[in-house]
Amino acid sequence: MSKGLPKRLDDFSGWYNELVKKADLAENSSVRGCMVIKPYGFSLWEKMQSKLDTMFKETGHQNAYFPLFIPKSYLSKEADHVEGFAKECAVVTHYRLKSDENGKGVIVDPDAKLEEELIVRPTSETVIWNTYKNWIQSYRDLPVLVNQWANVVRWEMRTRLFLRTSEFLWQEGHTAHENQNEAEEETLKILNIYSQFLEKTMAIPVLKGLKSENEKFAGAVDTYCVEALMQDGKALQAGTSHFLGQNFAKAFDVQFATSEGKKEFVWGTSWGVSTRLVGALIMTHSDDKGLVIPPNLAPIQVVLIPIFNSDEEYKSVTEKIKFVADRLKSNNISVKIDDRKNHKPGWKFSEYELKGIPVRIVIGPKDLENNTVEVARRDNLSKEIIDIKKIDSLIPKLLNEIQNNLFNKAKKFRDKNTHHVKDYNEFKKIIQDKGGFIYAHWDGSTETENIIKKETKATIRCIPIDNESSTGKCIVTGKESKGLVVFGKAY
Amino acid sequence: MSKGLPKRLDDFSGWYNELVKKADLAENSSVRGCMVIKPYGFSLWEKMQSKLDTMFKETGHQNAYFPLFIPKSYLSKEADHVEGFAKECAVVTHYRLKSDENGKGVIVDPDAKLEEELIVRPTSETVIWNTYKNWIQSYRDLPVLVNQWANVVRWEMRTRLFLRTSEFLWQEGHTAHENQNEAEEETLKILNIYSQFLEKTMAIPVLKGLKSENEKFAGAVDTYCVEALMQDGKALQAGTSHFLGQNFAKAFDVQFATSEGKKEFVWGTSWGVSTRLVGALIMTHSDDKGLVIPPNLAPIQVVLIPIFNSDEEYKSVTEKIKFVADRLKSNNISVKIDDRKNHKPGWKFSEYELKGIPVRIVIGPKDLENNTVEVARRDNLSKEIIDIKKIDSLIPKLLNEIQNNLFNKAKKFRDKNTHHVKDYNEFKKIIQDKGGFIYAHWDGSTETENIIKKETKATIRCIPIDNESSTGKCIVTGKESKGLVVFGKAY
Repeated sequence: MSKGLPKRLDDFSGWYNELVKKADLAENSSVRGCMVIKPYGFSLWEKMQSKLDTMFKETGHQNAYFPLFIPKSYLSKEADHVEGFAKECAVVTHYRLKSDENGKGVIVDPDAKLEEELIVRPTSETVIWNTYKNWIQSYRDLPVLVNQWANVVRWEMRTRLFLRTSEFLWQEGHTAHENQNEAEEETLKILNIYSQFLEKTMAIPVLKGLKSENEKFAGAVDTYCVEALMQDGKALQAGTSHFLGQNFAKAFDVQFATSEGKKEFVWGTSWGVSTRLVGALIMTHSDDKGLVIPPNLAPIQVVLIPIFNSDEEYKSVTEKIKFVADRLKSNNISVKIDDRKNHKPGWKFSEYELKGIPVRIVIGPKDLENNTVEVARRDNLSKEIIDIKKIDSLIPKLLNEIQNNLFNKAKKFRDKNTHHVKDYNEFKKIIQDKGGFIYAHWDGSTETENIIKKETKATIRCIPIDNESSTGKCIVTGKESKGLVVFGKAY
Repeated sequence: MSKGLPKRLDDFSGWYNELVKKADLAENSSVRGCMVIKPYGFSLWEKMQSKLDTMFKETGHQNAYFPLFIPKSYLSKEADHVEGFAKECAVVTHYRLKSDENGKGVIVDPDAKLEEELIVRPTSETVIWNTYKNWIQSYRDLPVLVNQWANVVRWEMRTRLFLRTSEFLWQEGHTAHENQNEAEEETLKILNIYSQFLEKTMAIPVLKGLKSENEKFAGAVDTYCVEALMQDGKALQAGTSHFLGQNFAKAFDVQFATSEGKKEFVWGTSWGVSTRLVGALIMTHSDDKGLVIPPNLAPIQVVLIPIFNSDEEYKSVTEKIKFVADRLKSNNISVKIDDRKNHKPGWKFSEYELKGIPVRIVIGPKDLENNTVEVARRDNLSKEIIDIKKIDSLIPKLLNEIQNNLFNKAKKFRDKNTHHVKDYNEFKKIIQDKGGFIYAHWDGSTETENIIKKETKATIRCIPIDNESSTGKCIVTGKESKGLVVFGKAY
């Protein structure tokens, strides 16, 4: 099955594209830039959704649903926002088709032109703040803590499955608060949910930080982000949490009566992660044999495969397989039995390696004699024979160990590929040769950031939150710098 | 809170509209025909999703995701389909906006016109069968059992919250099979999932049946449906399951190699339910005081409210409330405690009646003395004082009883409003005076169906599956009829 999968070191990008297709995660649709997420790929997204949704609800958020379409004029109401989002969008201009008089299928009915064009949402701040205007009158109506799971569209010229597609799935949280402090706390609370989810569930270590002016969300005061490092040394922005200040409240005139009876503009946040996380998952853990999925995220944690040479053996082996599967299920482990007769065990081994199932258990006639099973780990490809009585204690522990191992491996890789540079030449050399995260001093100006981007393609990934404050000189201009920032080439 | 809610008998339609708004379920957005589903309304849809999703997965279905956009030419490929769906759709013609030179915000960039217009999916048969063409080569690739949860758009001139909106949420299943028999079985399997879900979870009795030619899905061979009767005597189509024959396989050239090596077209089904179910829920059970939600669907099954006159009483009463809440939670009952001090108990009672919470438990100082609680049912508004020790045994039983009572009440209403008529005059009189379901003989022709529709606004809701075969004469033409069909005015 893994035939034709390029090696990561030879062609990382080709490896990624082929893996997404061969592992049945997604494919390009016939609609330019839009992908089809296949069942196995979607099951990964569902696991992410389910875990994140629980975390959002535990922190008091509720789901709702807002319209797909945004009147064109709304986009213009927040000055920065329109700059950022008006350019790449799908525009609905008509609401009817009609039969072509020349018999050539259907054509757009020119009589059904909309008075005002509708934009397919690239993000929903505008339509949501226009709604909040009616929901919020008094401090008693605050906070509003709402999230939606939705599809959005940003017209992209160059697309890659999961990483950059014209339509993608995401969640977008939009909250409204009485004061700046509460809104800022919310922004950081969500940032921590994202980093916890990425590290504990997806086993992806992340940097938490603030975006520079250049890279922040169009309409935000501050954009916080979680940044991860992929195996090719490129950075991937895995999630963002924006402190919106009163920008959208002012643009949509959302005011509330304070407990003292004064009128004030509401403070806002918005935050999101998308199906791009599936791309992050693949590029962090997977190897030349295929996907590697951390147990906490795996839709199937253990696959069970029988080995047999006769119908009689098949019967007794699959009976034992079912016994083991039941034991695992009673330990809340998700299992799949592949007892198909029309595929050889070797074919199945490759198949589930490609699909990244964390643990494979094989039982053959010899195991029946010895009361053993063979347990194989996907993360390090090691195998061992264990006593069947140890299933209950060993497999949960093993899954936990694999989860930790994947995180530690990714963390080690990131640390190895994190550099501190003193001057611009070193910076350029590392960016070109190795990539990775580079900590460097920067003078804080957009001009300097643009020079670096133009000359090296590297951008400021974030101004890390956990930074120890250290002053120094900007590597490009030599001007004063207030602290280290992290550069990298990004997806 | 229920002030201003019209009475059902005076103005059913006004009652519905007001209730949807006052109970915080949904509201119209500023985008014509598109609704905002508010958190409480969305929590009902989430419960429906979660239950149905489990039922789909238990029967072997998997979720996936297909593009929002459909190339215009796809719609024309299935001849009936284009007739049914081309007329009412949102058409994307451009992919970019630009700043207006006259400084008036943004305008559509005329240089960014799409070569082929894209339709926002009204339903996804075309784009999905175009994908299945690549997924299916051999009988080994079958069956394909896929579902997606998605938003769809059908341009509507007259809209009503949940019942008919330009954008709505739904699930659409699309399956592919080796032969006619298996596809027909799938169609009925799903019909049974829908009826079971409606009856057991939503407590809505349904008729299962086949649609007439006039009413069936554009592109289907047979459309099966579940039909429910609302309190105003109008019918509501709650879900449909289509046997597509080989229509879409032929339109998109989806062929497979049989086990004998022959090439054959694939057999298909599609099926869906939508946020319209929230409308069905409201119009089946709710009353002049507000929503009534069956316990199996209720996001909150029991609300707990303290009564107190002093801070000291507040403390001891809320302590007891928490104790009771914990007992309920350990019985897997979802609870909400409303111990806010800034609202009076009477206000809270009305509020939760309006929201349809199945059971209300009130504890006051007197209850502390007697070790009792007051339990009120939302369905029949009865109250009783019970010993606190009986909470564990009594509340789960009570929820069950309420669930059954709601179903029985709705069934009784439906039976009372189901009529059998012998002639067209009686038919017309009943349709005009009472509405409801009317069983009558029909000659099977579209012409006759159209006459009845034109003269009475009633349509054939379904040709019931469970019908005893009985021959008779058509009430309009007097021609032979092969069996009774069910008429009604419909939403």
